[in-house]
Amino acid sequence: MVKTNLDNGMNVWRTPEKLALVTGVDNVGKPHIITVGWIMRVSFSPPIFAVAINNSRYLHQCINETNEFNIAIPGAPLAEAVLGCGERNPQREDRFAKYGLKTGKGEYVKSPIITNAEANFECMVIGSIPAGDHTVFLGKVMETWVSEKPDQNLMIVGDQAGYQVLMEKSPYKLGIIKD
Amino acid sequence: MVKTNLDNGMNVWRTPEKLALVTGVDNVGKPHIITVGWIMRVSFSPPIFAVAINNSRYLHQCINETNEFNIAIPGAPLAEAVLGCGERNPQREDRFAKYGLKTGKGEYVKSPIITNAEANFECMVIGSIPAGDHTVFLGKVMETWVSEKPDQNLMIVGDQAGYQVLMEKSPYKLGIIKD
Repeated sequence: MVKTNLDNGMNVWRTPEKLALVTGVDNVGKPHIITVGWIMRVSFSPPIFAVAINNSRYLHQCINETNEFNIAIPGAPLAEAVLGCGERNPQREDRFAKYGLKTGKGEYVKSPIITNAEANFECMVIGSIPAGDHTVFLGKVMETWVSEKPDQNLMIVGDQAGYQVLMEKSPYKLGIIKD
Repeated sequence: MVKTNLDNGMNVWRTPEKLALVTGVDNVGKPHIITVGWIMRVSFSPPIFAVAINNSRYLHQCINETNEFNIAIPGAPLAEAVLGCGERNPQREDRFAKYGLKTGKGEYVKSPIITNAEANFECMVIGSIPAGDHTVFLGKVMETWVSEKPDQNLMIVGDQAGYQVLMEKSPYKLGIIKD
């Protein structure tokens, strides 16, 4: 065990990184979407997810204002959308149309669900905490949706043989676990 | 897309789940360790990890009192330790000795580093927030350690062929990505 810099340590930990498409609406009801890698379950009962959103993202402002969001779990068909929605969107163009993301109406939140994703979790914000350049939002799961034929979830993968790489755009490799 | 219960939705999302062994010390300096699956990076600068700890765990009390913890990333040799430290420990037996976890002295925290893990991140608590039956602690990374020959990180795996299963104890399958 030797001291090292953080990047070397993170190399052991970084992959696989599960991904989500997080949607929200701004204060005039316009929907927005970004790709998020820093997301996890944090409570069994009630069921709560934590998601870390960059403070400089417009979606951060949306969630702050509306106290809700939707988590969509992308599968293989959404690889291009996941890469695209990971980039900044200063013009706030309609990325739902651009990337073939089909939206539906949730039961509890105004944030759209993604009907061609593998699953959706509608969340109401029950707390948040600043964390450096991000904010951690806690979202209580209000409703769960799954595809009639859910497939594997997409993730950032490494170089091992057990992954099936689906799309690559440096520095990211998107893929699934080989079936 | 159909409404369903949370468990069905989680089936799409649950695996792979990366794991960590989190160490802390109580207020008389005695070290404790548990296995954690709900842990992620949440800030680039400063580097911060979030970890969700069950409110009923003794380690929760330790972290609350000392405001520090260490994250050890387990590899294949620590599979048995990971399963064992995932169980409750009401007698507070010495699980370091029991599971062959070798401890070392960190640079910034009293919580031990695990010298036969793949990596260690010493963390100081900079915030925390209640989240249902868990608490999310934010730990700023103070020091990073890696094994001289770091191997793959251990995780909870699914049934796909791309995984190499190393140990199984229902309902958990521990493994790595096939190399």
